[in-house]
Amino acid sequence: MHAYRSHTCAALTKADVGQTVRLSGWVHRVRDHGGVLFIDLRDHYGMTQVLADSDSPAFKEVEKVRAEWVIQIEGTVKARDAALVNPKLPTGEIEVYIRDLTVLGPAEELPLPVFGDQDYPEETRLAYRFLDLRRESLHQNMMLRSRVIKSMRDRMWNSGFTEFQTPIITASSPEGARDFLVPSRLHPGKFYALPQAPQQFKQLIMVAGFDRYFQIAPCFRDEDPRADRSPTDFYQLDVEMSFVEQEDVFQAVEPVLRGTFEEFADGKRVDQDWPRIAYRDAALWYGSDKPDLRNPIKMQDVSEHFRGSGFAIFAKLLETEGNEIRAIPAPTGGSRKFCDRMNAFAQQQGLPGMGYIFWRDQGGEMEAAGPLAKNIGPERTEAIRQQLGLGVGDAAFFLGGKPKVFEPVAGRARNVIGEELGLTEKDRFAFAWIVDFPIYEKDPETGKIDFEHNPFSMPQGGLEALQGDPLDVLGYQYDLACNGYEILSGAIRNHRPEIMFKAFEIAGYPKEEVEKRFGGMVKAFRYGAPPHGGCAAGIDRIVMLLADTVNIREVIMFPMNQRAEDLMMNAPSDPTNEQLRELGLRVVPHED
Amino acid sequence: MHAYRSHTCAALTKADVGQTVRLSGWVHRVRDHGGVLFIDLRDHYGMTQVLADSDSPAFKEVEKVRAEWVIQIEGTVKARDAALVNPKLPTGEIEVYIRDLTVLGPAEELPLPVFGDQDYPEETRLAYRFLDLRRESLHQNMMLRSRVIKSMRDRMWNSGFTEFQTPIITASSPEGARDFLVPSRLHPGKFYALPQAPQQFKQLIMVAGFDRYFQIAPCFRDEDPRADRSPTDFYQLDVEMSFVEQEDVFQAVEPVLRGTFEEFADGKRVDQDWPRIAYRDAALWYGSDKPDLRNPIKMQDVSEHFRGSGFAIFAKLLETEGNEIRAIPAPTGGSRKFCDRMNAFAQQQGLPGMGYIFWRDQGGEMEAAGPLAKNIGPERTEAIRQQLGLGVGDAAFFLGGKPKVFEPVAGRARNVIGEELGLTEKDRFAFAWIVDFPIYEKDPETGKIDFEHNPFSMPQGGLEALQGDPLDVLGYQYDLACNGYEILSGAIRNHRPEIMFKAFEIAGYPKEEVEKRFGGMVKAFRYGAPPHGGCAAGIDRIVMLLADTVNIREVIMFPMNQRAEDLMMNAPSDPTNEQLRELGLRVVPHED
Repeated sequence: MHAYRSHTCAALTKADVGQTVRLSGWVHRVRDHGGVLFIDLRDHYGMTQVLADSDSPAFKEVEKVRAEWVIQIEGTVKARDAALVNPKLPTGEIEVYIRDLTVLGPAEELPLPVFGDQDYPEETRLAYRFLDLRRESLHQNMMLRSRVIKSMRDRMWNSGFTEFQTPIITASSPEGARDFLVPSRLHPGKFYALPQAPQQFKQLIMVAGFDRYFQIAPCFRDEDPRADRSPTDFYQLDVEMSFVEQEDVFQAVEPVLRGTFEEFADGKRVDQDWPRIAYRDAALWYGSDKPDLRNPIKMQDVSEHFRGSGFAIFAKLLETEGNEIRAIPAPTGGSRKFCDRMNAFAQQQGLPGMGYIFWRDQGGEMEAAGPLAKNIGPERTEAIRQQLGLGVGDAAFFLGGKPKVFEPVAGRARNVIGEELGLTEKDRFAFAWIVDFPIYEKDPETGKIDFEHNPFSMPQGGLEALQGDPLDVLGYQYDLACNGYEILSGAIRNHRPEIMFKAFEIAGYPKEEVEKRFGGMVKAFRYGAPPHGGCAAGIDRIVMLLADTVNIREVIMFPMNQRAEDLMMNAPSDPTNEQLRELGLRVVPHED
Repeated sequence: MHAYRSHTCAALTKADVGQTVRLSGWVHRVRDHGGVLFIDLRDHYGMTQVLADSDSPAFKEVEKVRAEWVIQIEGTVKARDAALVNPKLPTGEIEVYIRDLTVLGPAEELPLPVFGDQDYPEETRLAYRFLDLRRESLHQNMMLRSRVIKSMRDRMWNSGFTEFQTPIITASSPEGARDFLVPSRLHPGKFYALPQAPQQFKQLIMVAGFDRYFQIAPCFRDEDPRADRSPTDFYQLDVEMSFVEQEDVFQAVEPVLRGTFEEFADGKRVDQDWPRIAYRDAALWYGSDKPDLRNPIKMQDVSEHFRGSGFAIFAKLLETEGNEIRAIPAPTGGSRKFCDRMNAFAQQQGLPGMGYIFWRDQGGEMEAAGPLAKNIGPERTEAIRQQLGLGVGDAAFFLGGKPKVFEPVAGRARNVIGEELGLTEKDRFAFAWIVDFPIYEKDPETGKIDFEHNPFSMPQGGLEALQGDPLDVLGYQYDLACNGYEILSGAIRNHRPEIMFKAFEIAGYPKEEVEKRFGGMVKAFRYGAPPHGGCAAGIDRIVMLLADTVNIREVIMFPMNQRAEDLMMNAPSDPTNEQLRELGLRVVPHED
């Protein structure tokens, strides 16, 4: 027999009754039933009930064991009485009568129980992560994550992509976020950086003549913590293809992601149709560039109905160029109580309030209620109702001003309305490609033009498009939204140095600066670069969606806490003087 | 038709003759055959010959293109004349007559040609890595690497292992080599470290109740450069299993590695039998703990034949306790010329020389030649010959002294003898498990006892074994050698805190120090740790073996040079003042 086990804790069935077996695992729970000790013995695979009574030669030993001790037992498989069969366990028809017990790894008093669902402070859970991970939900999340990544990887290989590793210790590359730096010992005073993404390397792989690259790539950004983001490293499904247009990238990754979602959706519906929505439309319809399409609400521009109307606030707003009035239709939201609650929500969000109209049945007649309806009169009210396709029992909310300013609140209001009215389908994964992102945006305060997205994207219309108003230039750049999260971002790249320099010039970066920052890539583009494009999908976020959690630490094996500390391994920590000396560094005393 | 290509450059065959097609790729070579321009058009997949004569509407454009431009052509597939068919190319039966040509990415004058096998300085190759990678051999190496990793990964999954990612930004953990540090911005003055290996994390994964872990894991060691080692990051197939003994680990990884080697051996023989050789035997027989078993030479202890013999140097040496005389048999090496050459080799290696005997035919009689034979006389000479199983035409070389001192030279001599005499089989992968490594070694100068290998290994005999002479304690730790390279290293771990503290105490580390250095893991072992063990295989080195190269930069997509610089991306580089300020660091002016 094997030194530690003849079977795992999920293996024994009625067919094994009578066998002498050896099992190893953790003591999940001990119960004393009138002098008979029952242990739920747990391992990675499952659980087996083992027991001893005072006739067992091992009884004295069994009496000593406590929760989470690692033990090995030898004994005989017995059938359970019919009444005691546990149909929920694969091993539920048997139990093992213990004849011998060896303690392989005792446990001290537990700071955190493994058995049971009791909630514990996250700091304790992280400091004792090895215990927390023994709990079923985290164990399942980790297995899910591993299988999701395997599934994506297999699907990429099966689609003709090849995985390559790109450097992790590399050059600083200011792509938006902050780099983690790594001081060099061989070159004291100089620093490497950890890659924010393999962006430049994957483009260089295309220039090097490889056609379809992917990588499950660790990425590093020194960012301030957020619930759905790891403060240090995270993983992307990184993809790049040569000789492609935007639609080719969609055709390549859609089946990979859809297939992965279908495989792990656990009964939820996975949308087959992934609409392409222009960035400007997404802002208008959903108030977001990562709309949640499980929510059927689509906002509309209703400015015309308020222009010169009796609702002075909106009418006045509309006198200013660029201002708009938009409506959020709220089917089934037609009660004053609900409308008032949403108005209060808007106030919490820092708005003066949110105008509304709701339609009710008044003695067999439809009546539009709310102060706004009175101000603009029945004709305009009816025109609005018809435009929005609403009826008795429905409501509509109105926001006005500069769209850029109120869109985020409108988007959040849309989410809340969808949630509260039960319009948002919970058991569904809904996707949308957001396309036609503008290349540039203007800083509202400084008026400075800067890149809206990734500076490496090809402008639609190429060099010619860059001669006009920069704010009109759209890029071949896209995101994929799922249930309100951005799960992928990508672009067709700007592979022509002359277009690239022009694009950067518009954003205020002179040629020398571009050469300095992205020298490796720009140099490569001078020696025969193919048209290419790709994307990167956020793996942690996809697993969060599939695991139905909003906390990224639930899908990472050993996460940092929100202050970017590893409480179990004690990181970060003080360097030794020897280390600092070798690196040619000195720590500047902290000013409080 | 697709915007860039209807076919890849490897797709067209005789069946496509007459079709109008579109191809994109790099201009591999242009040839002018009397006014007809032939282009070998290359992409990731292959090569297609395209051509234009002065009748082609694209002729003027075709005349402009140069090597490594990226172009797109449209044209008609034609069958080649029977005499011009190239059977070596999948597309060798056809060519494409160009009607239209678009330049997608022009190239400047090349610093490094892609076509041809000309050798270029490595610094140029690294600075223009994207060009070097277009060369066939590097392209093939990268594809090989990718496929090898995929094969290993698939085999691990198919063996019931699950892949988990462990943190890359983590705690400093002094495991032997130097850590790369990462300064923390949120905690100025404190540092993270990049993992030298996921050693502690994989052990924590076992303590957390997962059973069979693996990871294709990036590892980071700030080491001084060496030809077969990347100066920054490298990849390991990292493995850990619970409830196992040493032999279980072998049984799990042997089929994975053997299968991978068989898949990519490219005609070479892959040994089916992987002997287990004790560390001490490996030292005696091969002068190395990573013996090359393709070489049949096995050294032997021949001390008894020299004790009190007429060869005064050896006889005197043997009067000192611990000294030995060992023989390197050299079948077919029986000529004075060869023996003198090997003697000269030993002198180059810093030895006074290497005694030898060779056996030749002298008038139908076997004669032992060389000064050593004369000194010890015919009886002892014959006894040596019989022990070594040599005969006419063979030789034997002798080294004496402290084995630890001469073993490395003996090992190298064995390699050279095997090579020079053609005894080492080139077309073969030969493996050996090296087992029973001692836990400790004594520093010959300070006399201090320290860990010989990994401090986390379980001593054979457990706590009891640690009560005796530390130098006698063997560990459950092992290496796998292939063709003279160590390609894997592993151990059954010490999962019992009390044994661990004792083991560290012997090596001079008090309990507090162990708690400080490996606190996370030691803490975990107090809460129910299973017996566990595993290994890590060096992926870069395995790919080197399969690619038949001795330069690690030939199997890494974007390698550092030997001074740990990335010449293409310009790393490491100077930090900005802003970055240093945020990290609370100051660079100490360099003292020259």
